[in-house]
Amino acid sequence: MAVKLGENNYGKSRVRLLRVLRQEGRHDIKELTVGIRFEGDFEAAHTRGENKKILPPDTIKNTVYALARQYPVEAVEDFALHLIEHFLTYNEQVSRVRIETLENPWSRIAHGAKPHAFAFTRASGPEKRTAMLDGTREGIAIRAGIQDLDVLKTTKSSFGGFLRDPYTTLKEDRDRILSTTIRAEWLYESDEIEFSPVWHGVRQTLLETFAEHDSNSLQHTLYAMGEAVLASFDRIREIHLLLPDKHFNLVDLSPFGMDNSAEVFLPTDEPQGLVEATLRKE
Amino acid sequence: MAVKLGENNYGKSRVRLLRVLRQEGRHDIKELTVGIRFEGDFEAAHTRGENKKILPPDTIKNTVYALARQYPVEAVEDFALHLIEHFLTYNEQVSRVRIETLENPWSRIAHGAKPHAFAFTRASGPEKRTAMLDGTREGIAIRAGIQDLDVLKTTKSSFGGFLRDPYTTLKEDRDRILSTTIRAEWLYESDEIEFSPVWHGVRQTLLETFAEHDSNSLQHTLYAMGEAVLASFDRIREIHLLLPDKHFNLVDLSPFGMDNSAEVFLPTDEPQGLVEATLRKE
Amino acid sequence: MAVKLGENNYGKSRVRLLRVLRQEGRHDIKELTVGIRFEGDFEAAHTRGENKKILPPDTIKNTVYALARQYPVEAVEDFALHLIEHFLTYNEQVSRVRIETLENPWSRIAHGAKPHAFAFTRASGPEKRTAMLDGTREGIAIRAGIQDLDVLKTTKSSFGGFLRDPYTTLKEDRDRILSTTIRAEWLYESDEIEFSPVWHGVRQTLLETFAEHDSNSLQHTLYAMGEAVLASFDRIREIHLLLPDKHFNLVDLSPFGMDNSAEVFLPTDEPQGLVEATLRKE
Amino acid sequence: MAVKLGENNYGKSRVRLLRVLRQEGRHDIKELTVGIRFEGDFEAAHTRGENKKILPPDTIKNTVYALARQYPVEAVEDFALHLIEHFLTYNEQVSRVRIETLENPWSRIAHGAKPHAFAFTRASGPEKRTAMLDGTREGIAIRAGIQDLDVLKTTKSSFGGFLRDPYTTLKEDRDRILSTTIRAEWLYESDEIEFSPVWHGVRQTLLETFAEHDSNSLQHTLYAMGEAVLASFDRIREIHLLLPDKHFNLVDLSPFGMDNSAEVFLPTDEPQGLVEATLRKE
Repeated sequence: MAVKLGENNYGKSRVRLLRVLRQEGRHDIKELTVGIRFEGDFEAAHTRGENKKILPPDTIKNTVYALARQYPVEAVEDFALHLIEHFLTYNEQVSRVRIETLENPWSRIAHGAKPHAFAFTRASGPEKRTAMLDGTREGIAIRAGIQDLDVLKTTKSSFGGFLRDPYTTLKEDRDRILSTTIRAEWLYESDEIEFSPVWHGVRQTLLETFAEHDSNSLQHTLYAMGEAVLASFDRIREIHLLLPDKHFNLVDLSPFGMDNSAEVFLPTDEPQGLVEATLRKE
Repeated sequence: MAVKLGENNYGKSRVRLLRVLRQEGRHDIKELTVGIRFEGDFEAAHTRGENKKILPPDTIKNTVYALARQYPVEAVEDFALHLIEHFLTYNEQVSRVRIETLENPWSRIAHGAKPHAFAFTRASGPEKRTAMLDGTREGIAIRAGIQDLDVLKTTKSSFGGFLRDPYTTLKEDRDRILSTTIRAEWLYESDEIEFSPVWHGVRQTLLETFAEHDSNSLQHTLYAMGEAVLASFDRIREIHLLLPDKHFNLVDLSPFGMDNSAEVFLPTDEPQGLVEATLRKE
Repeated sequence: MAVKLGENNYGKSRVRLLRVLRQEGRHDIKELTVGIRFEGDFEAAHTRGENKKILPPDTIKNTVYALARQYPVEAVEDFALHLIEHFLTYNEQVSRVRIETLENPWSRIAHGAKPHAFAFTRASGPEKRTAMLDGTREGIAIRAGIQDLDVLKTTKSSFGGFLRDPYTTLKEDRDRILSTTIRAEWLYESDEIEFSPVWHGVRQTLLETFAEHDSNSLQHTLYAMGEAVLASFDRIREIHLLLPDKHFNLVDLSPFGMDNSAEVFLPTDEPQGLVEATLRKE
Repeated sequence: MAVKLGENNYGKSRVRLLRVLRQEGRHDIKELTVGIRFEGDFEAAHTRGENKKILPPDTIKNTVYALARQYPVEAVEDFALHLIEHFLTYNEQVSRVRIETLENPWSRIAHGAKPHAFAFTRASGPEKRTAMLDGTREGIAIRAGIQDLDVLKTTKSSFGGFLRDPYTTLKEDRDRILSTTIRAEWLYESDEIEFSPVWHGVRQTLLETFAEHDSNSLQHTLYAMGEAVLASFDRIREIHLLLPDKHFNLVDLSPFGMDNSAEVFLPTDEPQGLVEATLRKE
């Protein structure tokens, strides 16, 4: 039997970082978790235990901190571009660098109407801003994204006209609650993007489309959301959406002589429907 | 050997609920998780397997839904008061009812400056609003609280002048990052409180005091936060605070020939300092 | 308004530790997470920001490692006793030390029938061994415990004869699945105990009693389990049990023309019944 | 702008199931979580909100329960094969069915040396048995796997001779602790496999190779583990391994005048090294 080493990579994950920018009268902070993976010429490490082409994961971590010191981290995508350039320049044994970042957003504590100069609290819900950059010596693919953005609407959602088989017991529902946790990732056409304003714009487009769309199904809503983003941002080439269907079941109160006209619901996490799709500009 | 049954209780936890209020042109929602525990005369169930004084946990759950249908859930404390009154009225075998609620906050999706009529997203960070009510036939103790409220400040915090022993290696720090996750619970003097406005007021007092206080230690900050709440709200009799010390360690960049004047930090979750105290009006 | 500082404590949590004992031909390991809390004379730290009676949490952590070096950690209770003695001896400002430990169990990888000398894997399920010791200059209370011990039986469990009210829809069930996650904590009469053999004995007594008991309710099972432990171990004075009722709902297959005589069930985590009690020797 | 729907799928996740086999004097149980995804002709649902080719996720869930009633679930792979056959037979709009299963293992409570007839506890650590089957009308790919299998060895592991750059501070380590959480997935050559015995055999091969191998790096260990599985099981065509490097840092006790010759370590979860590779038979 001959064994062949196939696709392989190594790196460092969960590299955590708080970057503080200190200006007179105003501090800014950015909290990130960074993961880095290398592809390249690592066969001897696997087959012969020979490490001379292995840059230690500990060094990869050190590099994140050293570069964070040199560059103010404004948009995470810009910081990730510096990391990719560094690793590809100084490591000829590496053919591909993948950087994944996850940002824990902070916002300023308000004192009355005035934002505080150096005190912060978590912003805007459990959602996270993500980025994934894939860099080779030929080019770089930049994907930005959002995770854990919970949304819910109490009307303008139905599910009917579906296929039925002998195991189908579901009733058509002309006016149901629709709720999901948005996970989206989109691909930029270039690296000359105003990453942070565009990210906030995509987030707002996703929220507004979810709210306004007259939904026949979660697929229908997903497509509308993706189409709206592609129509509104000309530098975005494709978008991938993964939407769980978070069910809210109407509680049956008839045993107690009560009606329940869409007022009392049971939120459930299991089981969970799921829709996933990629939309592209032709 | 004689065995005696000591303190005991039973009930139902993780009863989840979404309540929708449907008015023309505007829907309101409230998502809660409710736990209910009974103390009372349950010895025969334990020692003889005799259930005739056991109201099934399934019935306790049903009651939550039935009462949610009858009463609009505005402040969770008001809803919990209805539950306690119901259980104590119809169950003479029960001497004490404890209700614990945890609210997952939602806020309206904004469309431009306009809040949407029926579409929502998670509000204001990972924090949760909590309530714990303890009711007997003699009276009711109402505690409101907040959990998971992350805060951080980049200056106005020091730690020095502490006790040293042979295992002490910590250096004094005149200007450090201070970060914690606020967990607070306060006791009301009566049940005639505007629960929701007071809750938001306490939250804002905790945030502002954290931000403004010139801190010598986490104990020092805790006391200032508790004292500010007791001073600002005359219907609050005592407050309990539990604050972990979330360390941000300055990364040593000197091996790379770089300084690091409080700009690049490593956030850590383990190990974690911890301070806990109760403050009371005399 | 006069504000008074009430009960308060501080300390260090999540202090993680792997202790290796290296003997010729055989290594032993123990992985622990330790939490330490001090009560004592800390008012000035709160009210005046004066730290001279505050031993830094960082020092508390260092002490855990230094004492782990000096004493082989066999039973965690013995290690915790050393910590309490150390802190009470050298810190007159401290009146009470609480140590909480949680052990992540490892077992040897078997090579055929032979246990390996220095390679390990996680043992025996998600369960954890716990200890909580409360020490003052007057004495020490030692509690050992177990968490996350999942059990299930497919018969010899019923629930009937219970109280009914207008919100009761539950049917009596003469033969149901009974499942819970055991959380137990017991108090020793002295510190002259063979902690590890007794712990394993209590675990086995809990499992066997759960399996054999003819259960009328979860209360009934809880009491039998506690009584069996108190009857079998004369150095245990009291035991506290907290048992969630993990429901397995029979799936209704009648819409598909199938019966389901207790063969296909839906496991659920929410909502969850709950029983809690303390049993004591008189 | 023209938008094109790319890859897409939908389905149901977290379908939970307990299957009981009741024989005289002996019950067997199997607890599963099942996820199902369909690829196929679903464009109209996305672009026009037309659901007539959408079998509801609720029906997919019902089918899991109905088929679990008809077939005793012995090896999960056999059960998944029945599901794929059912869905492909009755749904011409579906071109691909993916089934993912995760088994929560239970083992019998022992009563003395005797295994109990109908009472169970969680088995053998946090590990999970997984399966992923991908079925089309052309064929089925069957992958079995294991997750969350923690291992640790206290010697026979080094890391040295690696690449150094200006950010490298790591020292060579000739005798370190090696610990990882094994995640493995392997591809079978056919569906005529004794799935359960082979699974246990692969698990044992992974454990023994980890224990015995003289490791120069985590890559080196990964390759040895994969090679041993491919050499021992002729029906396995390829194996994918993902191994985090769980660091145990030696605690520096020299400030307290103590040595620490590999006895007291700090376990850490962050940051974490990571190695991933696929090995194939040529």
